[in-house]
Amino acid sequence: MKYFEDIAEGEVWDLGSRTVDAEEIIAFARKYDPQPFHTDPEAARKTPLGELIASGWHTCAIFMQLLANYIGSRQYASMGAPGIRTCRWLKPVRPGDTLTGRTTLLSKRPSKTRPYGLVDTRTELFNQDGQAVLLIEGAGMYGLKPDRRAEAGS
Amino acid sequence: MKYFEDIAEGEVWDLGSRTVDAEEIIAFARKYDPQPFHTDPEAARKTPLGELIASGWHTCAIFMQLLANYIGSRQYASMGAPGIRTCRWLKPVRPGDTLTGRTTLLSKRPSKTRPYGLVDTRTELFNQDGQAVLLIEGAGMYGLKPDRRAEAGS
Repeated sequence: MKYFEDIAEGEVWDLGSRTVDAEEIIAFARKYDPQPFHTDPEAARKTPLGELIASGWHTCAIFMQLLANYIGSRQYASMGAPGIRTCRWLKPVRPGDTLTGRTTLLSKRPSKTRPYGLVDTRTELFNQDGQAVLLIEGAGMYGLKPDRRAEAGS
Repeated sequence: MKYFEDIAEGEVWDLGSRTVDAEEIIAFARKYDPQPFHTDPEAARKTPLGELIASGWHTCAIFMQLLANYIGSRQYASMGAPGIRTCRWLKPVRPGDTLTGRTTLLSKRPSKTRPYGLVDTRTELFNQDGQAVLLIEGAGMYGLKPDRRAEAGS
């Protein structure tokens, strides 16, 4: 496992890429964001946006998928996150877009009371044209090394 | 349709409720947030969190579902959102929880250049025990009345 102590400020994590198609955009939105510009290509043409675009929450879910796969395959001791402080949907995500994620580790600090540390990050997702489509900033929680955890009183 | 001009600062929208079960928590997380405390009740017991909890992004998606159903059924001219400025996962969401949403309209302002207005909101989701599990703050875009839109030059 990799713990809070193994994480260095300034690291950049290349989260990899994946493509999102119309079927997935529509399936996500039918369930969680049923608005015509997310669920129906024909109806979307008649809206002010003029085309089918992914729900912003779907874009966030794709970010999380890339991040979870990254930290899972490298065995980071992730313990989730208390929230995010910035989420900006910078450009529309369209059917067929390939999204690539990059996370920069801005700073880290141990919790004063709990057996984990907080790692503050900024993540961008880019489309195949190099345009940033999503900006997410916030802190994730990572477990301390077992020997440190004992010192922290857990 | 209800437009930007029909929205009043200080309004409170009761978004209604819905229950989330283990099957949905696991299905969402297997696809978008594959970490053991979201995907596997047995494995979750061995993590520091000690139990299966919903992905925070799943909780956000449930918020969006309640909001989209509210504005859709009342025919608000929603045009999406540029992002959110606060997202806090205040308490774990567990299988069987019933979540109830409440959105407060904090302020509104017309866009200076585009044919819509921005409505700044704060939403909380509460569980069946009245505990707030999610806080979301940000602005949504709502279309202007057709006659105003012409004045705005669109």
